[in-house]
Amino acid sequence: MTINQISQVAIVGGTHGNELIGVYLVKKFKQFPDLIKRPSFEALILLANLRAFEAGRRYLETDLNRCFDIQDLENPMLIQYEQLLAKVIYQQLQESQVDFLIDLHSSTANMGLTILLGNDHPFNLHLAAYLSSINPSVKVLQTEATQKNNRLRSVCELGITIEVGPISQGVLDATLFQKTEKLITVILDYLEQWNQNQTPNSPNTLTLYYPLESIDFPRNEAGEVVGMIHPSLEGNDYLALNPGDQMFVNFDDSVVVYQGKTTVYPVFINESAYWEKGIAMYLTSKQELNILNQ
Amino acid sequence: MTINQISQVAIVGGTHGNELIGVYLVKKFKQFPDLIKRPSFEALILLANLRAFEAGRRYLETDLNRCFDIQDLENPMLIQYEQLLAKVIYQQLQESQVDFLIDLHSSTANMGLTILLGNDHPFNLHLAAYLSSINPSVKVLQTEATQKNNRLRSVCELGITIEVGPISQGVLDATLFQKTEKLITVILDYLEQWNQNQTPNSPNTLTLYYPLESIDFPRNEAGEVVGMIHPSLEGNDYLALNPGDQMFVNFDDSVVVYQGKTTVYPVFINESAYWEKGIAMYLTSKQELNILNQ
Repeated sequence: MTINQISQVAIVGGTHGNELIGVYLVKKFKQFPDLIKRPSFEALILLANLRAFEAGRRYLETDLNRCFDIQDLENPMLIQYEQLLAKVIYQQLQESQVDFLIDLHSSTANMGLTILLGNDHPFNLHLAAYLSSINPSVKVLQTEATQKNNRLRSVCELGITIEVGPISQGVLDATLFQKTEKLITVILDYLEQWNQNQTPNSPNTLTLYYPLESIDFPRNEAGEVVGMIHPSLEGNDYLALNPGDQMFVNFDDSVVVYQGKTTVYPVFINESAYWEKGIAMYLTSKQELNILNQ
Repeated sequence: MTINQISQVAIVGGTHGNELIGVYLVKKFKQFPDLIKRPSFEALILLANLRAFEAGRRYLETDLNRCFDIQDLENPMLIQYEQLLAKVIYQQLQESQVDFLIDLHSSTANMGLTILLGNDHPFNLHLAAYLSSINPSVKVLQTEATQKNNRLRSVCELGITIEVGPISQGVLDATLFQKTEKLITVILDYLEQWNQNQTPNSPNTLTLYYPLESIDFPRNEAGEVVGMIHPSLEGNDYLALNPGDQMFVNFDDSVVVYQGKTTVYPVFINESAYWEKGIAMYLTSKQELNILNQ
């Protein structure tokens, strides 16, 4: 693969204002800049949605992390608060010539330490393989095929989103905070080594989870939720869900089982922010990708 | 103790719009009214703050569960949304002549199944003792001394708040949902037996936790949070915190230890909704109360 040196890194927290690990890591890095300083590149930090953070909410008017479609950024009719904010952030990142971006998120689902990839660039794949090789609990979710390119991380070809959980909105969890910080440190070290032509070896294969479809909660004819994640599925992100396994328990005590024909791996199970989007979980497939020649 | 029959019970959910267990239990009871029907009393159900629920927020303008001080209810100058809503709910509960009230809450803290008492009425104490005797995981928190009488449950002398956790705001958890429903069922059965002069025996003593003080997060001079609950304290609600035990880990990696001279029992550790109130936890004392002659 031919890419230039990484000269400018951006670390973004608070893209969602109530996901506090990212917000406070950015605050920490601002206070202790040596933590993200490396000889061969600059690292800028950004608290993306300060007003949403101050309001204790994911966003004020619309989800900032759905506002980065290039056509939307160029559409002068889109003037909600986060739509304007996205245009300004995009401009800022372009002017800074950011060539690697880390966007920090957290989830009420049991996502552990998840790397979200928005494309299949070999650089990102090798980095993800390296991260999961030195910490087997790191999972890698490839969202390219199922998402519009409207996420903040899509601004930059190289880069990842870090999604950690489970953690409630509006709180910090020291253990997850420290694990996330450690992951960022390892990424920055990897970028430094890349620039020095001393990139550490990564495995030849990478376990990737590919979203297949989203599943909504059971609802009645009025659209109201009438069931919950079944206790046997709660917290089982990245574990196998087999045909006939229990998915939901309804308020009338009936049970909804998984009707599919193949084993899938649910993620974002019971993510609070996805209720409004009609998503109780995503089903993914698990695949080993050979990245030797990529 | 001399109280009349319980003729009218109220079960309230959604006093905080993003505490979904209460909201959906109320919806369930509306759909299946037989679940709360008993021969000797009526049970009305109330989704207190529907608009906050629809907005996915604790409240729209101010915390509804701080609006029930009788002087505030009578103050015509208080016209924020929840202040008006409190006046209307108070009127409704008065007109219905409610004589026992259950208010349903949830917490991001590891509160398990907690009974919150707002006064020391013997009826409430005996009920709490009964509930904790048949389910030893039930904890009883006596908030009378430390809270203004501005909670919804203060509208009615007899009654309790149920506080369950840990659960993120804006989601359901089937296991906690079912445990909460079971607790309500036991309470309604107890009230029925009381009315039939067949009140089940409760123990002579009751373990009560009394809030002593609230503890804020470590902050800098600008008022910003600069530390988190220490991992060794996270989730340890109702467990002993001894002098010298770790409480917070700061972003500079320094640790704050408990400086008090006596063992205390923290509760509401890392409750998301209390960040804005400057409360990282409450410290409580644990006491055995003899209720034989009460």
